[in-house]
This record gives sequence, structure tokens and C-alpha cells, in this order.
Amino acid sequence: MREHFYAVIMAGGGGTRLWPASRPERPKQLMSFGSSNDSLLSETVERAAGVVGKEHVLVVVAANGAKSVLEDLKDFHAKQVPAEFSQGKSDALGEKGSGDPHEGNRKGVGVHPMGVPGVLVEPVGRNTAPCIGLAALLLAQKDPEAIMAVLPADHHIQDINAFRTTVTQALVQAAKGFIVTLGIRPDRPETGYGYIETGSLIDGAEGVFWSKGFVEKPDLKTAQRYLNAGNFLWNSGMFFMSAKKIIQEIHSSMPDLGKALTRLRDALQRGEGAFKEDLQRVYPEMESVSIDYGVMEKVEDLQVIPADIGWNDVGSWSALEDILGRDENDNTKQGEALFVESKGCVTYSDDGKLIALLGMQDVVVVSSGEGVLVCPKDKAQNVREITEILKNQ
Amino acid sequence: MREHFYAVIMAGGGGTRLWPASRPERPKQLMSFGSSNDSLLSETVERAAGVVGKEHVLVVVAANGAKSVLEDLKDFHAKQVPAEFSQGKSDALGEKGSGDPHEGNRKGVGVHPMGVPGVLVEPVGRNTAPCIGLAALLLAQKDPEAIMAVLPADHHIQDINAFRTTVTQALVQAAKGFIVTLGIRPDRPETGYGYIETGSLIDGAEGVFWSKGFVEKPDLKTAQRYLNAGNFLWNSGMFFMSAKKIIQEIHSSMPDLGKALTRLRDALQRGEGAFKEDLQRVYPEMESVSIDYGVMEKVEDLQVIPADIGWNDVGSWSALEDILGRDENDNTKQGEALFVESKGCVTYSDDGKLIALLGMQDVVVVSSGEGVLVCPKDKAQNVREITEILKNQ
Repeated sequence: MREHFYAVIMAGGGGTRLWPASRPERPKQLMSFGSSNDSLLSETVERAAGVVGKEHVLVVVAANGAKSVLEDLKDFHAKQVPAEFSQGKSDALGEKGSGDPHEGNRKGVGVHPMGVPGVLVEPVGRNTAPCIGLAALLLAQKDPEAIMAVLPADHHIQDINAFRTTVTQALVQAAKGFIVTLGIRPDRPETGYGYIETGSLIDGAEGVFWSKGFVEKPDLKTAQRYLNAGNFLWNSGMFFMSAKKIIQEIHSSMPDLGKALTRLRDALQRGEGAFKEDLQRVYPEMESVSIDYGVMEKVEDLQVIPADIGWNDVGSWSALEDILGRDENDNTKQGEALFVESKGCVTYSDDGKLIALLGMQDVVVVSSGEGVLVCPKDKAQNVREITEILKNQ
Repeated sequence: MREHFYAVIMAGGGGTRLWPASRPERPKQLMSFGSSNDSLLSETVERAAGVVGKEHVLVVVAANGAKSVLEDLKDFHAKQVPAEFSQGKSDALGEKGSGDPHEGNRKGVGVHPMGVPGVLVEPVGRNTAPCIGLAALLLAQKDPEAIMAVLPADHHIQDINAFRTTVTQALVQAAKGFIVTLGIRPDRPETGYGYIETGSLIDGAEGVFWSKGFVEKPDLKTAQRYLNAGNFLWNSGMFFMSAKKIIQEIHSSMPDLGKALTRLRDALQRGEGAFKEDLQRVYPEMESVSIDYGVMEKVEDLQVIPADIGWNDVGSWSALEDILGRDENDNTKQGEALFVESKGCVTYSDDGKLIALLGMQDVVVVSSGEGVLVCPKDKAQNVREITEILKNQ
């Protein structure tokens, strides 16, 4: 069974919430945190490879982000990949590539000739439903029994062993024909995430629950109720299912996307050229919809595994406190910083600047790229307001 | 009488209070504010030249700061000086220079061959008393009737016309044999400055008062009393007197410095070489004392002119509010900044960074050189704490 396990890593996020360090040419998944020099993406690839094997990892990214993702994974290749794999010999999609790692990017379309990990380039970003549909189509073509772990590229996970165990369990469960999701046990009344309500335990599958459905981002009172109730988990955005199953669910919940996938499957059977041509034509017309909204919320037999894996989606600058830890004055830093009479602050500098705080409390200060950001820690989730103003200028 | 007027501009300040924008290689006097591209030093030279003539301006700086001062004044020369003066023909000190504007600096000692303005390089900085004594010695040598306006190089002055009128009045008064100082009318109970208490008006000299003496930096209650009393003025550090008179006062109040000046005068009469050699030997041994403490506080017939000249010593970052003005949300910026839901903040960026504030109030944020500074506006006068920590690291 395990030979059919694959990981699909979605590396398309734009990342406006960590401005000025995250920006179009370096979205969050390409940033690194703590002592690691590896990007969140590289770490995700590595984690996934630990479960499904390096040659079964597929990274999906839109053309406009492909160049920097390929650049980032080049480091990964240099470090990780044995010589015999580094020339694209391990071809998870059964495609013959030119061996030029930038080909997919230059053409802005299509399947990148697969080295390790494989990189699938979407002509444009169309949110997660088309992305997962396309990956499922290609994996099913290569391996009709393929089971997919769908993983966001921009999460930080502390406990690698727990991750492996849980993901393996989820893949095994998916192999039985179910769609499985990981739910993160909340440790605070978070209003920034969607939740999944768990129902009854599933017989014969220890620690796996039936889902009673997704619930929207709650207000603080509701979030507190969820926390107290104990059977509400954060939606991690990690999903597990066979390629066949998700294509089937797409056909039933998103018929237009289903039709587009059928057309692409037919093109694929006519050959690589026909597929690339059709992908270029069909993909941009797909509706931009998340897999959560488009499919998962309608799946009737969704299963949930509560996961204690040290998960953090680095959704705002204040997340650094949990990832990096606090000093004796509750300050957290990445890069050079000097805290004078300051408490509870978070600093991030990746441009060589020393950030000096004098008499400050509970603020975030970031120096990176084009800008310097200063805001109270509890406003860190509103940083998008700044990127929107800048975009409109 | 006016042909004997000179300006001595003290450009030796270290400038730790505007870190990270001010730093050893670019002290405050070399910074520029507002729409002006000229440094405070260049503006001071220009203002002084408007009163005493370009060829009567002498800038004094210690060797370790000379290179950047000469660099700064090069711009001034290029812009200001007619061709016939730019080769050092206007030789205010009667010295023959090599014409190489960096000669004084490279040797780290002595009188810079004077172009416009002249630059006198101290072997090392020894506070204002030795600096003014040396300048007085050299000016007296050139012009026994020389009357000096001693001006700090790092003040911002808004009202140039008022400055000219007041300084001219002070020089005229100094020509009568008095030491005259400008006192700034306080507009707030400032605890960061020393004060001068004024006594009675002087007959026949409109707007000139006898000084009742200097008073130390007060506590807030005392500062409030001074403000209410109306006859306490801020010590501006601007002094006016004949070269003869100040040398005489130095001899009586600071006999060691007096002796050193006599030795230097004798060396000067033996020729340039002897003078430079002696200066190098004598100057570093002089006691580092301010002219206020060493001389002015002991002068019995000190006169004060209350000055309304839009004076600002840019003593901390919060001074930018007064120099640059506030917008409709009481924010002040120099360089790129974006204020979102923020009020009463001050930003300064000279490194191309956009400083974005979200939900902040009454803070100072500076991005320049090696660092980023964030502190509450009312802690801005403590920035020196940071530079001291950095120095000790």
C-alpha cells in the first residue's frame, strides 16, 4: 500500500500577512524561521519525503511563483538528492523532461520535468481546488492507486515524529476510500481560523473521528465556547485521499472543474504537447475556489484526526513568539535586536539591521526588504491593510 | 567695525542622541532635515556668511571628524564660492596652504589652508573651551581687532532674518568689549537645557540684558517656574566677544589653558611648522572643558540678548515635530512613511525604507544606517542609552 503514497505540496500562497518580509517574489513559504536556514517549503518537502519518499513528493506552484520556488528547491536538491536522482531520472509523473530545471518556468506552463521533488507549474494560480484536481489527475495517470497527502507549503511544524505518525495514519485511512483531514487541537480561543467539529469515534480506527462539518471563523465568544467544548479543531488545510476519490468528489461538487479535468485527461492521453496546450487554455478559465469551500464542506463521510504536531501556520508576526520562544522579558527576536526597558516585543530583521527598542511594550517590529513595520502585537493580523494600501498606490 | 566680524563654527559634536541616523562618521551636524539637502553645518555656515561674509567663517573640527566635515563643505564650496575664492586665495588666517583641501585632515593636525569657509582641525576634540581658545588665538594673530560669533554647527534655525539681526546686534555689542550670549525664549518647561537668568536692561542697547548667571538643567517644577517667571532663557551656546577678550577671560578663569595658548602663540610666531608641531603636542593634554563651565559662568559682565529666531537644537528625535511640522493626525515624517490608524508619531528614514506604522501612537521610528530605532516619543531623549550599550558590546 505504501508504495502508492504521494505528497502534493501547495506552494502557491501570496503571503501578504508577513509584510515587509514576505512579498510577491518571496512569499511566506520561502521564508525561514529560527535557527533553520531552510525555507518553510523546503522543510515541508523534507517532512513529506520522510513519509512518502523523496521521489513521491510533488510541489505545485503557479507560473509567477515558479522561478523562486525552483530556486529554493535547488538548494534542497543539492543537499538532499543522491546523484542518480539529481538529473531528473526519478520521474514521478512518467514524463520525459528536458532536464533543464527552469524549462517549466520559462514556458510558464505545464509539468516540470521531475527531479526530486517534482514541480508542477500551474499557468496561473486558481486557489486550491483546481490545483489539487490537476495534481490528482496527473498522479492518477501515473498510478491509478495513488493516495495523496495534500499539504500547505507554509506551515511550521515542531514535532516531526508526531507529524509522521499522524500523516501515515491519515494516508492509511485514505487508502480505505475516505477523505481524511488533520484537525489541530486549539490552545486558545483563536478567531482567525476555521474549525472542524468532530463527531463520533470511528470503529477500528483509533483516534479517527467522523467530521460533523466545517465551521466559519468564529467571533471571540464562540471561539471560547469551541475551546471549552473540546470537540472543535482548527482546520489545518491538510487533506488525505486517493486521487480517484478526490476527482470523483470534484465531479459531484464542482461539475465545471470536473469537466475541465476530463478535457485535460483526454489531452494527456494524446500526448504531452496536447496536454500543455490545453492546460494553458483551460486552466486560466477555471473558477478560483478553495478545496474547503468547493469540495470538503460537501463531503458526507469526511474523517478527522486530531493532531498534536506543534503546528503553526505563521499567520501573523505574533506567531514568532510560539515558534522562536520568548526570553526572560518575554521578548522574541529573529536577527539582530536590542531590547532596552522593553517587554513582550517581537522583532524580525533579515537585512542586517539592528532593531533597537527602548521603552516599548507588546509591539512587533520588522525590518526587511523595502520596509519597516511597527504595530502592536494584537494588530499583527491586520498587516494586510498595509499591503493593500501599497498595492493601490 | 564690521570688517572685524568673524564666525567660529564648532563642528565637533559626536551626536549620539539621533542614533541610528547620527553616528561617529556622520554626526548630527552633517544631517539634513526637511526639504533642505544641506546639512545643519552647511546651513550654519551659510547663515553665518550672511552676517560676517564668506571669507570670515572658520569651522573648527577635531581630526577624527575632519574628513566628513571637509567632504560636507566641499558641496558648499561647489555651490557657494565664486571661482576666485575656491583655490584657497581667501586666506582668513594668513597661512599659506598647499591648496589641497585634505591636507589638514591627512596630517590630523593644524590649520587647514583656508578656502571658504576656513577649516581649523584640532588634533583631538577637547570640548568647547580649548576649541574657542585656539580659534581666538589664530583670529587675533590675523586681526587683533577680531570680533567672534561662536556658533554650534548642529542647530536648526527657522528665521534667518531674525538670526541676522540678532547676531549683528550681538557682534556690535561684543565690539564694545563685552561677552554677549543669545538666550532663547522658552515655550515649554524644558528640563533638557541649561538656562540663563536675565537681569536689568542695558542702557543704550535696546533688547540687551545683563545676565544674572547660568542655571543648571532644572527639574520639571523649576522649569515651570522659569517659564512663568519670563526672565529665564535657554542657553543657546552662541557667544559673541572679541578674540582679545576671550583670551583674557581664559587666562583669568582657566590659567592652564591660558598658558597652553601662550605657548601656541609663541610657536605661531616662530612659524607654521613650529606651531603645528606644538599644537600636536600641547592640544591633547588640554583639559576637556566646556566654555560655559570653564569661562562663561565666571564672567561678571556677561550680557544676554533674548532671541526669537526659531531655534531648535535637534536634541532628540522628537524635535522633528517642530522642525518639520505635523500632519492632520499629528504625525511627522522625513523620508517614506505610511501611517495607518496611527497618531502623534515621528518617523525618519534616509535609507530608502518605507516605515509603515499600524495602530501606533506617540512613537518615534527611525531607519538609517546599521539600525532601526523604536521608542515612545517621551523616551526619545534617552536614545544615548542604546549607543552606550552598543559601544560597550
